[in-house]
Amino acid sequence: MTVERILPTDEAYELLGLTREIAAGELAPRVARHEAEGLFPRDVLRTVGRAGLFGLPYPEADGGAGQPYEVYLQVLEILAGSWLAVAEAVSVHTLSCYPVWAYGSERQRKSLPDLLGGDLLGAYCLSEPQGGSDAAALTTRARRDGEDWVLSGTKAWITHGGQADFYNVFCRTGGPGPSGISCVLADADTPGILPQAPERTMGLRSSPPAQIVFDGARVPLDRLVGEEGAGFRIAMQALDAGRLGIAACAVGLAQAAVDYAAGYARERTQFGRAIGEFQGVGFLLADMATQVSAARALLLHAARLKDAGRPFSVEAAKAKLFATDAAMRVTTDAIQVLGGAGYVSDHPVERWFREAKVLQIVEGTNQIQRLVISRSLTRG
Amino acid sequence: MTVERILPTDEAYELLGLTREIAAGELAPRVARHEAEGLFPRDVLRTVGRAGLFGLPYPEADGGAGQPYEVYLQVLEILAGSWLAVAEAVSVHTLSCYPVWAYGSERQRKSLPDLLGGDLLGAYCLSEPQGGSDAAALTTRARRDGEDWVLSGTKAWITHGGQADFYNVFCRTGGPGPSGISCVLADADTPGILPQAPERTMGLRSSPPAQIVFDGARVPLDRLVGEEGAGFRIAMQALDAGRLGIAACAVGLAQAAVDYAAGYARERTQFGRAIGEFQGVGFLLADMATQVSAARALLLHAARLKDAGRPFSVEAAKAKLFATDAAMRVTTDAIQVLGGAGYVSDHPVERWFREAKVLQIVEGTNQIQRLVISRSLTRG
Amino acid sequence: MTVERILPTDEAYELLGLTREIAAGELAPRVARHEAEGLFPRDVLRTVGRAGLFGLPYPEADGGAGQPYEVYLQVLEILAGSWLAVAEAVSVHTLSCYPVWAYGSERQRKSLPDLLGGDLLGAYCLSEPQGGSDAAALTTRARRDGEDWVLSGTKAWITHGGQADFYNVFCRTGGPGPSGISCVLADADTPGILPQAPERTMGLRSSPPAQIVFDGARVPLDRLVGEEGAGFRIAMQALDAGRLGIAACAVGLAQAAVDYAAGYARERTQFGRAIGEFQGVGFLLADMATQVSAARALLLHAARLKDAGRPFSVEAAKAKLFATDAAMRVTTDAIQVLGGAGYVSDHPVERWFREAKVLQIVEGTNQIQRLVISRSLTRG
Amino acid sequence: MTVERILPTDEAYELLGLTREIAAGELAPRVARHEAEGLFPRDVLRTVGRAGLFGLPYPEADGGAGQPYEVYLQVLEILAGSWLAVAEAVSVHTLSCYPVWAYGSERQRKSLPDLLGGDLLGAYCLSEPQGGSDAAALTTRARRDGEDWVLSGTKAWITHGGQADFYNVFCRTGGPGPSGISCVLADADTPGILPQAPERTMGLRSSPPAQIVFDGARVPLDRLVGEEGAGFRIAMQALDAGRLGIAACAVGLAQAAVDYAAGYARERTQFGRAIGEFQGVGFLLADMATQVSAARALLLHAARLKDAGRPFSVEAAKAKLFATDAAMRVTTDAIQVLGGAGYVSDHPVERWFREAKVLQIVEGTNQIQRLVISRSLTRG
Repeated sequence: MTVERILPTDEAYELLGLTREIAAGELAPRVARHEAEGLFPRDVLRTVGRAGLFGLPYPEADGGAGQPYEVYLQVLEILAGSWLAVAEAVSVHTLSCYPVWAYGSERQRKSLPDLLGGDLLGAYCLSEPQGGSDAAALTTRARRDGEDWVLSGTKAWITHGGQADFYNVFCRTGGPGPSGISCVLADADTPGILPQAPERTMGLRSSPPAQIVFDGARVPLDRLVGEEGAGFRIAMQALDAGRLGIAACAVGLAQAAVDYAAGYARERTQFGRAIGEFQGVGFLLADMATQVSAARALLLHAARLKDAGRPFSVEAAKAKLFATDAAMRVTTDAIQVLGGAGYVSDHPVERWFREAKVLQIVEGTNQIQRLVISRSLTRG
Repeated sequence: MTVERILPTDEAYELLGLTREIAAGELAPRVARHEAEGLFPRDVLRTVGRAGLFGLPYPEADGGAGQPYEVYLQVLEILAGSWLAVAEAVSVHTLSCYPVWAYGSERQRKSLPDLLGGDLLGAYCLSEPQGGSDAAALTTRARRDGEDWVLSGTKAWITHGGQADFYNVFCRTGGPGPSGISCVLADADTPGILPQAPERTMGLRSSPPAQIVFDGARVPLDRLVGEEGAGFRIAMQALDAGRLGIAACAVGLAQAAVDYAAGYARERTQFGRAIGEFQGVGFLLADMATQVSAARALLLHAARLKDAGRPFSVEAAKAKLFATDAAMRVTTDAIQVLGGAGYVSDHPVERWFREAKVLQIVEGTNQIQRLVISRSLTRG
Repeated sequence: MTVERILPTDEAYELLGLTREIAAGELAPRVARHEAEGLFPRDVLRTVGRAGLFGLPYPEADGGAGQPYEVYLQVLEILAGSWLAVAEAVSVHTLSCYPVWAYGSERQRKSLPDLLGGDLLGAYCLSEPQGGSDAAALTTRARRDGEDWVLSGTKAWITHGGQADFYNVFCRTGGPGPSGISCVLADADTPGILPQAPERTMGLRSSPPAQIVFDGARVPLDRLVGEEGAGFRIAMQALDAGRLGIAACAVGLAQAAVDYAAGYARERTQFGRAIGEFQGVGFLLADMATQVSAARALLLHAARLKDAGRPFSVEAAKAKLFATDAAMRVTTDAIQVLGGAGYVSDHPVERWFREAKVLQIVEGTNQIQRLVISRSLTRG
Repeated sequence: MTVERILPTDEAYELLGLTREIAAGELAPRVARHEAEGLFPRDVLRTVGRAGLFGLPYPEADGGAGQPYEVYLQVLEILAGSWLAVAEAVSVHTLSCYPVWAYGSERQRKSLPDLLGGDLLGAYCLSEPQGGSDAAALTTRARRDGEDWVLSGTKAWITHGGQADFYNVFCRTGGPGPSGISCVLADADTPGILPQAPERTMGLRSSPPAQIVFDGARVPLDRLVGEEGAGFRIAMQALDAGRLGIAACAVGLAQAAVDYAAGYARERTQFGRAIGEFQGVGFLLADMATQVSAARALLLHAARLKDAGRPFSVEAAKAKLFATDAAMRVTTDAIQVLGGAGYVSDHPVERWFREAKVLQIVEGTNQIQRLVISRSLTRG
């Protein structure tokens, strides 16, 4: 099934075409081995970055590609359909450039072409072991000492932890609560930044998150991004966009699962007919495809609101919630369509199923999304 | 909650504003009594028609308003949020003008300004008692006799049956199967067209469908619309658009239910707090609102494909399936938010719940939608 | 489909047989008219009561039938499959006899044979307009005055309100909170007990609940049931059993819907085959039947725990939650199997659909059931 | 949470106690390593077998333990809560003894004490690469040659393939269709029985299935079990019981997931409270627990029908369908309760999630179960 997309420009159609080529030529041949062996795809990411996919939604003047979110997210979707870890990397890197782009000093913004150029990889240090969903309670501290911030504490579940070139560190420079949090940009090779062993995750094995211990790491004072105390606000803004990124990953994963399962159902025969001709399988596929189409449409609506400069935070939460729940359901059912074949690594659907689960958790669990949405309804 | 809409023109924003005024001023004050007493809203429809809402998606040259489907469907949505029967009437009437508009002879098309003008009401006679989902098996016959078609047979579940001014009658002029079916346009006051007693429906009581018996009704030969044998194709094309109409009705109904339940959850207190502050209620509302947003986005994606002249039939089936299933779920849960209050006619949610159910059935049951979608996947 | 039941005694098989006869002979012929016209089935209830079904789970020594809950609930189930209002009446009456049976004074217990005999009908006054789910906050007051309690306040959603012969009134005799609540037994003809107009409910129209205003109604002091301040505890205990009753009603309703839809699917043909042979319909029926079987099994497990004198409160909450959610889903899908025919009152499924909804609300909304269950899990 | 069980005998309570001891002492300490490294638990199975758990539902006279299915399945449930592969092994072994026990010749039945004794491990060769769900189409052939059957063909998805001591081989001795199938018992060390490399499964890694190639393997004629042509009937009967076994595994897995998630929700704090106190988590747990209780109750109802010698085939299909769907949903949600922690192998829930999926597929996919159930309804 070709997905019927309505894109805003001819350029966007070309960009999606290019992305499909990269996915087919660079990602598809490597994903199975990397995921099986847990190899981080640094080279692949460099190729993806140099193709210009690391700064799509930023203005060309800053070194980006000036694409609307509506288009950028469909690029993510296509990447995720081939290799979730790569799509997530693009999403996280894009997020990691946001604080400097939106709040950075003149001088910090001079580094934007480097950040968006495709050679560097960023990470985003917000979560901590004790406060997954309760970000405002974070305890990693940045103490002012002479010309430096001195960072101490532990961050958890950091995508690209140990692989990134730079980290946005959200840390406490003031008192308790959100207003005591600031954002500091730190080079990965700063002494005292100690990535820990990667987590033993069920999926996304080529790019597992890791804890990062900050053990008195010293970062120059002028690496503070935005004002002191603005960190929580920056983090939440970035999260709104990050949720769209995860939703796009979920749509791509789910679409791949629908396509694969439908293809299998056309080929596999039982009782003398292609199994897809039995309504028991065909209707399951119909529900799967419907979920994916709805998820994509909802996602793109939220993206267009963002592109139009209108409030999109609640719609982003809905898109993240809906798309990731759909991806979990759709990948579960895709295995079912394949039967036993779906349960073994000869086919990619068991990988997608393992990957889908993490999307319901990251960038705010789906419980947090429901909280965001319900508040918009009940604080009327 | 204001729904964040992205409309293509300023005119569209004005049109939706006008629709909201009509809904608030003409529909809302009358709906409860009409539904309770089973009174057909002929006057209200005349008002709605004269306001220009009976021909929105047809070109201005033909007497329409030249609106894209994307906009027309959001008008339907707003009407449905106030009074489903009225929205359905607009949808069915719009559908009833399609055969003449798309396939009519020069002379038939001269009547378009009348059809679209708002004074006449159309109906669409496809279903029969024995062949609800299997339209191609219809048995109502049109026999050529002199200058007339002579119609005999029984049509079932006809919206506006007994109220319409004209009927599109799909009838057999040839052999069995789809290719033997033609479309004939008949005035309602033709002798031998005998509307039966209205069905005793659970909802939509102000506009229940009825059987129509054709007992040798004579219609001039030149009332054949399109070629002989083209009837099934015409019917199916109209159905694709009709599915979008029903989906829009479902979105409007569900949005109304979310808004009402959220409002109640803000006001009603239990255990010393507004019930919406309990996650048990708040998360339920969040899931409801998410379903509605996804349904609307999916619907509008299908509409934009249609507006762009691209294939939209499968996406329309997905939109009808998803939106009507969502409306059923959302209205069921809206009653739950109100508790006992939701079960009595002091509040409109019990009516919406009764109305939602019919949307899963009309214009092709949701099983038929799944069949359409699954074929697109498995005939790949 | 015959339901495969395992009953503890031969007597139980006979009792269920008798119940089926009463259902077929007395209930089935009358239900449609009573529901359509809103006529309370007082005569039918008298027949049912005199057949011994008003005191099934009470000891024979007290005038009951000495049946285990396991059997009593299957009687309810069969009644509900014919006429929900009658089954609910038996359940509510059985509940209404519980306070006197379990906590009544010697003298009060002397009235048990009358209460259980089948001529009197009881009601249970717990809910109030402002405190549906928050029963402990009730405000109806009983003030001691001479030899009487003087009752003032308003009760809401009272099944048999205006029809009952006696009321269990839960009222505040002390300070705020659960410990200030007592239970008083009042004759219906007591001056100052003023049943209000029945609620205009969507279903259960032959037995709508009503508010009851207590306007200085005087009840002798010795009509206090149990100790002063024991009312809340009594109410909660009765509710545990009452939840089983509602769950049984839900199972009966859902089983009736499965049977009816399956029968229709065997008879109705489309595309040249019985529609039940299409997996799209057949699998839907399979899921419906599975839900009902699971609901019944869960219900009977809870009942057997109660019969064995073991803790059953959490399992009763699970049974109420699961069975009523299942009934809602199953009746919604039963209409779908019938298509348009399911939406009109020629067939009973639209009535069952309207009735199912109330079961998710009464005897503790399903949100309250989830609260009960979640506490058992998280208070470890 | 202690599960409230009602068991038929004191002996059964003891047996479950013993099972819990074995699970805690032998299984729990070993499962993680075996699953991580893909080590088949031959020693553990020997311990389990010698404790008498390999022949529970067979009569004591035949070397079994004379337990009703109702009890045997709860043993399986407890084992599955610790180590699914071990529970599945017991279930498959029990199944593998059925043909000889039910249809074996006098001489074959003499081996029952050995089969049930705990030292031997059986397997069940029904599925083939081309005919997963369509068992009647199997093509593995047994040709009569002198005193032997000569077996040729390939079996697929064989649990214990390459580990078992004996195989029940369902093979074609006659013409096409079910009546041409027979059952032959073969020792694993027969020349020409060639187990292939184990499948690379997503879960159940300590006991992956394997294909078995029969390359002219010779089995004495008297190893035919039952009559020639009776094989399909034997296989289907065994499957009915096997479905109960898988359902019990699913219940055990799901119960373990509920218990673990509830324990985590009691300990983990966010926003200053145990997360289980938030209704968003607490209600999720409540729904999970309710699903598990319903699944167990349904399963035990089917078991009691079997124990009573009554028809149980449809109820077994319902139990398999419902319990495995519930296990999939519950384990998915259990990860959600743990958040990121649930996605890594520090906690067992990600393993249970991977394991749950296979249960929806084995012993007849859940689509096949729906087919069985729907036929019982629509062939009424």
